Amino acid sequence: MKILDSEFQAWMGGVQARMEAVLGRVLPAASVAPGRLHEAMRYATLEGGKRVRPLLAFAAGEVSGAAPERLEIAAAAVELIHAYSLVHDDLPCMDDDTLRRGKPTVHVEYDEATALLVGDALQSLAFQLIAESPVAENPKVQLEMVKTLALAAGSRGMAGGQQIDLESTGKALSLPELELMHIHKTGALIRAAVLLGFSCGKHSEAEKPLDRYAKCIGLAFQVVDDVLDYDGSTATLGKTAGKDSKQGKPTYVSVLGLARAKEMAEALRGEAHAALAPLGARARRLSELADFIVLRKF
Amino acid sequence: MKILDSEFQAWMGGVQARMEAVLGRVLPAASVAPGRLHEAMRYATLEGGKRVRPLLAFAAGEVSGAAPERLEIAAAAVELIHAYSLVHDDLPCMDDDTLRRGKPTVHVEYDEATALLVGDALQSLAFQLIAESPVAENPKVQLEMVKTLALAAGSRGMAGGQQIDLESTGKALSLPELELMHIHKTGALIRAAVLLGFSCGKHSEAEKPLDRYAKCIGLAFQVVDDVLDYDGSTATLGKTAGKDSKQGKPTYVSVLGLARAKEMAEALRGEAHAALAPLGARARRLSELADFIVLRKF
Repeated sequence: MKILDSEFQAWMGGVQARMEAVLGRVLPAASVAPGRLHEAMRYATLEGGKRVRPLLAFAAGEVSGAAPERLEIAAAAVELIHAYSLVHDDLPCMDDDTLRRGKPTVHVEYDEATALLVGDALQSLAFQLIAESPVAENPKVQLEMVKTLALAAGSRGMAGGQQIDLESTGKALSLPELELMHIHKTGALIRAAVLLGFSCGKHSEAEKPLDRYAKCIGLAFQVVDDVLDYDGSTATLGKTAGKDSKQGKPTYVSVLGLARAKEMAEALRGEAHAALAPLGARARRLSELADFIVLRKF
Repeated sequence: MKILDSEFQAWMGGVQARMEAVLGRVLPAASVAPGRLHEAMRYATLEGGKRVRPLLAFAAGEVSGAAPERLEIAAAAVELIHAYSLVHDDLPCMDDDTLRRGKPTVHVEYDEATALLVGDALQSLAFQLIAESPVAENPKVQLEMVKTLALAAGSRGMAGGQQIDLESTGKALSLPELELMHIHKTGALIRAAVLLGFSCGKHSEAEKPLDRYAKCIGLAFQVVDDVLDYDGSTATLGKTAGKDSKQGKPTYVSVLGLARAKEMAEALRGEAHAALAPLGARARRLSELADFIVLRKF
């Protein structure tokens, strides 16, 4: 199983460590005013998560031969959007969660108003990063990247997915409806991570396979999340387990049952691999990540 | 008094009408899914406000000879950031306000979670707009505009100002502390409006006077807001009057007293005019707006 391949593990650890350093650098220090806001922004972003989106960006960058100095910025921008969405998602008016990545959520550790501003400011910082650093071959591509990220984050992407999620609580969704929700809620930003990483390098005709790959992996990620949420314990997840089903939210497990949800994840993994086939060896890391995302246990 | 000049009034009415049309066009229709989110985004943004920031952007565009087709997009981006900040600012965990521009606030009309997402999605849309439309002479300038807007909105701009505001409630601030708060909270975005409008046109050496003008006008705007909040009634303001002082928030009136606050607004108006002097006739609209902002009664 590739997930245990020590060379892949070392690559992954390397990207994760690099991201920790980059995020630490691009986030204003807690000594910069307003200190409490900057401290809370760092709390929300650092030392947490598997950095799946940055890993995808770095892996997609291998397809276009992108320099790591560019990839780390594009990856940081995507991760900041992700981090902001978690902070807002955990707020009492949304999921009202108290635990995230094994730590109290931002509004619990600080307060609600600060958590609101943390999310707001993390979003601004993401766009600032892509605009101010030479992350692509030319400024035109960079503007495309800003647009891709904005669309992925906005009302027809992630924020829209959250809204569909809100409205679906307590309802029985069909599989296509559930899919539509997750294509927005998680899929859009995962797709952006892949496309932004790819855009850091030389232009080539790979958008179509990457797009198909990203769609499969985005859905697979959510299906596996639902399986783990159903199967796992709070301790291994680092967040409150079984929360979605308790809140009456439809999940792949509630719609398909556990066995069929696992089959679906497996099928999506296969489809992701198939999408990468035309890209050859350049897509090795993306291929490994498909395995990692579906076969992970926590 | 220039504020009553019918030619200026006609120009202002023209920009306001144009902005209503542009915002109506760039905001997704309520018929686009998720419909409730898009409807609420429109509710939060349309038919409201004096459009001071768009007016400043259009006026600054006259300094650099910018085309209205570009200005309307840059102005819309700034206005979307402003609209998002109002929605989040009105939330129960922040100012907990129920009335804005004479209508129930977004979380009252819809719900808190939707209001949170409305703000989030409006912010994304702002960056999307600047990235996807040809708003400047070249993509490099456009990237600079993304950066300027991101910095103005973020933790060292508007969101940072909100945090300072949160922390200052119930405290006695000195004049420099109050100024620091407002330079962030309102001043940063007003400055961005001026700079973005200017950036839509041909490059010229006018940043310095515009920057000084924007600083004066940003502060003057807040001083006048505090005076009106103290003096005015809820009916003429379209928002709850006297709220800041009731919440124990420091204002220019509470720090300086009414008479000295009015004097300060007048002094800032003079300084704004002085800053524009080197720009000559091209700065006429900016000059008129300085009068409008300080001499407005509602």
